[in-house]
Amino acid sequence: MDIMKPSILPGFMELLPADQLLFNRMLDTIRSNYEKFGFLPIDTPIIEKSEILLAKGGGETEKQIYRFNKGDNDLSLRFDLTVPLARYVALHSSELTFPFRRYQLGKVFRGERNQKGRFREFYQCDIDIIGNGQLSILNDAEIPSVIYSTFKDLGFASFTIRINNRKVLNGFFSALALANKADVLRIIDKLDKIGPEAVINELRALGLEESAIVKLMTFIQLKGTNEEVLTKLRAMNLDNPEFNLGLEELTQVISYVGLLNVPEENYQIDLTIARGLDYYTGTIYETILNDYPSIGSVCSGGRYDNLAGYYTKQQLPGVGISIGLTRLFYQLKEANFFKIDHPAPSEVLIVTLGTTVDYALNVAQKLRAQGLTLQLYYEDGKLAKKLAYADKLSIPWVILLGENEVTENIVTLKNLQTGEQRSLDIDDAIELIKA
Amino acid sequence: MDIMKPSILPGFMELLPADQLLFNRMLDTIRSNYEKFGFLPIDTPIIEKSEILLAKGGGETEKQIYRFNKGDNDLSLRFDLTVPLARYVALHSSELTFPFRRYQLGKVFRGERNQKGRFREFYQCDIDIIGNGQLSILNDAEIPSVIYSTFKDLGFASFTIRINNRKVLNGFFSALALANKADVLRIIDKLDKIGPEAVINELRALGLEESAIVKLMTFIQLKGTNEEVLTKLRAMNLDNPEFNLGLEELTQVISYVGLLNVPEENYQIDLTIARGLDYYTGTIYETILNDYPSIGSVCSGGRYDNLAGYYTKQQLPGVGISIGLTRLFYQLKEANFFKIDHPAPSEVLIVTLGTTVDYALNVAQKLRAQGLTLQLYYEDGKLAKKLAYADKLSIPWVILLGENEVTENIVTLKNLQTGEQRSLDIDDAIELIKA
Repeated sequence: MDIMKPSILPGFMELLPADQLLFNRMLDTIRSNYEKFGFLPIDTPIIEKSEILLAKGGGETEKQIYRFNKGDNDLSLRFDLTVPLARYVALHSSELTFPFRRYQLGKVFRGERNQKGRFREFYQCDIDIIGNGQLSILNDAEIPSVIYSTFKDLGFASFTIRINNRKVLNGFFSALALANKADVLRIIDKLDKIGPEAVINELRALGLEESAIVKLMTFIQLKGTNEEVLTKLRAMNLDNPEFNLGLEELTQVISYVGLLNVPEENYQIDLTIARGLDYYTGTIYETILNDYPSIGSVCSGGRYDNLAGYYTKQQLPGVGISIGLTRLFYQLKEANFFKIDHPAPSEVLIVTLGTTVDYALNVAQKLRAQGLTLQLYYEDGKLAKKLAYADKLSIPWVILLGENEVTENIVTLKNLQTGEQRSLDIDDAIELIKA
Repeated sequence: MDIMKPSILPGFMELLPADQLLFNRMLDTIRSNYEKFGFLPIDTPIIEKSEILLAKGGGETEKQIYRFNKGDNDLSLRFDLTVPLARYVALHSSELTFPFRRYQLGKVFRGERNQKGRFREFYQCDIDIIGNGQLSILNDAEIPSVIYSTFKDLGFASFTIRINNRKVLNGFFSALALANKADVLRIIDKLDKIGPEAVINELRALGLEESAIVKLMTFIQLKGTNEEVLTKLRAMNLDNPEFNLGLEELTQVISYVGLLNVPEENYQIDLTIARGLDYYTGTIYETILNDYPSIGSVCSGGRYDNLAGYYTKQQLPGVGISIGLTRLFYQLKEANFFKIDHPAPSEVLIVTLGTTVDYALNVAQKLRAQGLTLQLYYEDGKLAKKLAYADKLSIPWVILLGENEVTENIVTLKNLQTGEQRSLDIDDAIELIKA
């Protein structure tokens, strides 16, 4: 037979089992936190009609989409979980209970230019709360408590949830009478990446007056505790309704996040974050891992006025966040975040020496009945090979069963970490393993 | 804005949250059982190179594949998890530990003709054990114990794992000097569906002699306990090495399945099952839910001599099974299998009456600290609407917090099943909910 050299496409992450266990553990932690806050799971198709996914149309995204025909159908692979959510809520609206709290974890696809650390197939882990007609600002305050709970459980010692409000930004710009808000937003969003000098240069190139630039830079660099920043914002006494509404929302969100027991050190008003996406209309979030700042935001999102305007006349305001897990995992791995290299698939490996399989199966049943996870090594071969199997999979205990163990109705238990080996009753072995 | 009517493609399953919870629960049960037996997770890309996925080439499957170009690349969506496994093992062989026990749960894609109960995107839940050069027959015996454990946990009261061996079938056909084994296999595989009369007619149409047909029908209708069937097979005294090797394997598998504590009523030699796929070479399995026989086999698989001959010269024998969960879920739902319609996303809903949010958040923290899952209803509106929210989501407990509760530092707890309502201390409420 002709052999075809096996390979996968560039830009697609495929992990060895030990890493897959770590990845799945993160996915499980995210899911259990989302569920703890009452979010319901949905699972939309990976393939949808192109006209549906691209209803909004246009831009960079469209070029990246995996789009193709099958029969008469123009099909696309989903490129995020937000457009499918909008379509889902519009389609099933009458059968859903609002506010609709949903989570979805799944792969999305973008045929991006191939580069290190960028993936064409990657997991997004999203939550959104969708209101029918209206949605309380308290939901905006709950989101950071979900982020806090999730990232604590993921094992991050120090992280900051940056919070801002688009109305504060927009209102401020209006007060400054800036014509090109979208461009200004795009530029200040880069402050972290390119620094204040470069931001000032870009603002000048945009044609902003020096006085406006000074005010803008002062504004976006307002520092202090959350209370101090809010006080300074109020002290600006801006006569702009949008600004003042945004400031009121921000004040409420900050206050309730505290009441939801998120420690003060884990959330911070940051007037520089703007989120590029044009559909955010209120609260916006980014999350920075303080020990890995170069990763950038690992969990972002915000409040929007209307989720599904392309598919329904129903007004559906919402607030949500997304974690891009594939990229995060890749970068944490690169940064040596993971302390355990190889989580063990089982606690015990049972090894037969000679024809002792019947006895081994019997021992296995007794261990399983006590809740231990185990596997049996059935293959022929030298003892060293069998022990190497356990060692490679990080299985901590090996039970060796030869003729002697059968005759005396005992087991020989080996601890692979210490190398210690003892013959003892099955019950004693179970106790030792559990201890 | 123009509204586009939301829709999804036919043949794609999309569930409402209550059903999604049931579906995910099944997926979790399958996964935890696979993990209990020491199988390691892998997650291969959904998109692969067409030349890789189609190395084996041809047939019905190829027409069903979602295949397309992006840039210069000829891409396909995976249509099963077995071809990606073969590619994975061949690609990563030097980094894997053999026998390699892997599980994979994921969506696969087949553009089948649209019909009720058939899906173009569906979940497969696979385990396989892959040996390097050789693999003990004991692994074949372990597979039914995994099936047993999994389907018990899924809540099925009665099911039968049918076991056969391709060598027994092939050897018997050779002894009968049948030329067209593949056709005969295909026909007898239909016994359950079309009945013995029709099978006999098809065998005649194939040109088999009457004496051969009689022997064949006697053989595939051999009945009795596993021990009786094995005794009858041995009594045939067939002088065919393949038959005798298969009989020896079948005897061992049946004996060890018993030692692995699978009850006799849950596994049965069935000489009629042949599995259409041509790569099985030894033990084969099907699983029938006895209360839903019309669903057909819900978990099938078998032993094969060489997993990845298209990608490597390494001999990789294996044994595995697959559960097609999307179709199974659909059919169980149709058959009213699920007793609980709406698993609750939370145990408690906290409802504020008036401006009692601060107190409500405080109560929420206390409940969460005690491990209760809860959510808060933040929206304005009448009490009836708030209670309806809990009711629709099957949340069993509602905590009502008005000015009175704040003043007295108590909560009012309502049981939505009984309608009973009591005002009490927070600690007492927690105790009551937990009880």
